[in-house]
Amino acid sequence: MTRRDPYHRGVTAGDLSSTACVVTGGLGFIGSNLSHRLVRHGANVTIIDALVDGHGGDRRNVEGLDVEIIEAEIGEPVVADAVADADVVFNLAGQVSHIASMHDPLGDLHLNTICHASFLEILRRVNPTVRVVHTSTRQVYGKPIRQPVDELHPTRPMDVNGVAKLAGEQLHLVYHSAYDMPTTSLRLTNVYGPRQRLSSDELGFLPVFIRKSLLGEEIHIFGDGAQRRDCVYVDDVVDALLASTAPEAIGMVLNVGHAVDHSLAEIAAAVIHATGSAGGLQLVPWPGDHQRIDIGSFHTDCTLIAESLGWKATTSLDDGLAATAIFYRSHPWYLSST
Amino acid sequence: MTRRDPYHRGVTAGDLSSTACVVTGGLGFIGSNLSHRLVRHGANVTIIDALVDGHGGDRRNVEGLDVEIIEAEIGEPVVADAVADADVVFNLAGQVSHIASMHDPLGDLHLNTICHASFLEILRRVNPTVRVVHTSTRQVYGKPIRQPVDELHPTRPMDVNGVAKLAGEQLHLVYHSAYDMPTTSLRLTNVYGPRQRLSSDELGFLPVFIRKSLLGEEIHIFGDGAQRRDCVYVDDVVDALLASTAPEAIGMVLNVGHAVDHSLAEIAAAVIHATGSAGGLQLVPWPGDHQRIDIGSFHTDCTLIAESLGWKATTSLDDGLAATAIFYRSHPWYLSST
Repeated sequence: MTRRDPYHRGVTAGDLSSTACVVTGGLGFIGSNLSHRLVRHGANVTIIDALVDGHGGDRRNVEGLDVEIIEAEIGEPVVADAVADADVVFNLAGQVSHIASMHDPLGDLHLNTICHASFLEILRRVNPTVRVVHTSTRQVYGKPIRQPVDELHPTRPMDVNGVAKLAGEQLHLVYHSAYDMPTTSLRLTNVYGPRQRLSSDELGFLPVFIRKSLLGEEIHIFGDGAQRRDCVYVDDVVDALLASTAPEAIGMVLNVGHAVDHSLAEIAAAVIHATGSAGGLQLVPWPGDHQRIDIGSFHTDCTLIAESLGWKATTSLDDGLAATAIFYRSHPWYLSST
Repeated sequence: MTRRDPYHRGVTAGDLSSTACVVTGGLGFIGSNLSHRLVRHGANVTIIDALVDGHGGDRRNVEGLDVEIIEAEIGEPVVADAVADADVVFNLAGQVSHIASMHDPLGDLHLNTICHASFLEILRRVNPTVRVVHTSTRQVYGKPIRQPVDELHPTRPMDVNGVAKLAGEQLHLVYHSAYDMPTTSLRLTNVYGPRQRLSSDELGFLPVFIRKSLLGEEIHIFGDGAQRRDCVYVDDVVDALLASTAPEAIGMVLNVGHAVDHSLAEIAAAVIHATGSAGGLQLVPWPGDHQRIDIGSFHTDCTLIAESLGWKATTSLDDGLAATAIFYRSHPWYLSST
């Protein structure tokens, strides 16, 4: 695939050469892909990442990249200096595991809500006009009562992670309405691609499917495999993050998903095809703790971001998985890292 | 007014004589009114209240009432013993000031979200089958995009208090869906009546209007007075809390408001009439910090709780305000207490 870098009405590749960008969670999956793109276009990038155990952050994700790294939680006072002169803050830091949020609800609320409240207070004090793009999750909707799910669909999360992420998202919008801070939040659906932590079974089904297939192991699908999801390649998400710096997006919550959805069985088959795995797939019964917080089928309605910012996901599942397989074949440490 | 104590399909007056009830925030406005009712019907009542400065809790609200009082935050370990043998927990503890939540966002998130997460973890550990009724607020909806506002209306709070209360509410529902804990949350609109803290200007317009009129002072209305609200008398809210212990309400979020709404100018006139105040009223410009977090007109749709539980508010604004004025005339300390 050739990336066209079409930032639409948001930051353009040309703009980036003179911008100071802060990426929180920048050592993680999406944050590191964003950082690579920003550096490629000449931005000055500062990464803030707490490297919380098991959350996907890894310095190797930005190995050789010319970025400054501050190892801290985003709510810590040390962060103030780093954000004081920033033009754009991409606020991606957070805990992403649904299961972990149930084992440690206070830990999830700390990382996804409280730290963001502290961070917004820091921004309000030292740099209240900085452009802020925050990443939320489609998990805030819970079990859909209609499909596809647009931004006005009720939010009734099924796990603590969804509750905490929604609160973090809403805090960003309150700081816009109450203080005119230029914030935007994106509700991301299932994202896959290079630099994702593959070794955990708790960060979503896509990294598990990809790891198993790359290792030639059998993919296990919970239930009957008929449940549907739309999956977005990480480069498309990076496009959405850049597009969302446009003035039109200020004060908005926008879904980021894919127009085409697939059943889990189809997704597993596509992963097996992309990786050439001999492991195959098997349907297995749901583990109880997963089933209780499962949301069933979900298809994202991305009309609002398309109409507001001109963004839509352009990478097909097959193309994205092919690029993903190539990346991990040449970066095998992702398969064994814990 | 004669209270009929019509608990519909929830706890009945007869049931209460053998129940152990915990009321968190029981020294506050709604909690103390609930505690009085519970004791009147023979329940054993334990109150947990942190008596946070300025939040409405006051031991005088339950003076002479046969209740046990534990002065603690609801997330503290000492609470475990108090809830271990409870039949019903009415979880009313929280911070209610919208303005205070903007001055101290972390304090509001602590009281309305984090403490409730800790409390739910305690309940899950020591008494996972206890019936829990939590109070949320119509503030979670933000500025209505349609009227009247039903429970499926999108939630986009305009202040930190709304964000934190919504997260607290959603945690209760997650503990139902994930752990089968029998929880319910009620979204209350503007409540008035006896035992409300009148001396603060930060706990809503109703206590301010009532205090000013009782003191013969002029009521100030922000803006043009055309903004509309539905107001509920506290005894009706106590009815709703008792009705919501019905099995039908488990796992539900229910609006609690009044079928009849009024403009702020009409409400002020009704307060002046009920109190016989000579102070009159005046329209004044909005203070900036209030206007930024204001939600405009709001009318609650209470169809769901009426159809599910048979509850509806039965006290008219005039009747409720008349009873309110009588109460405060005979309890004058409310007018001077800080």
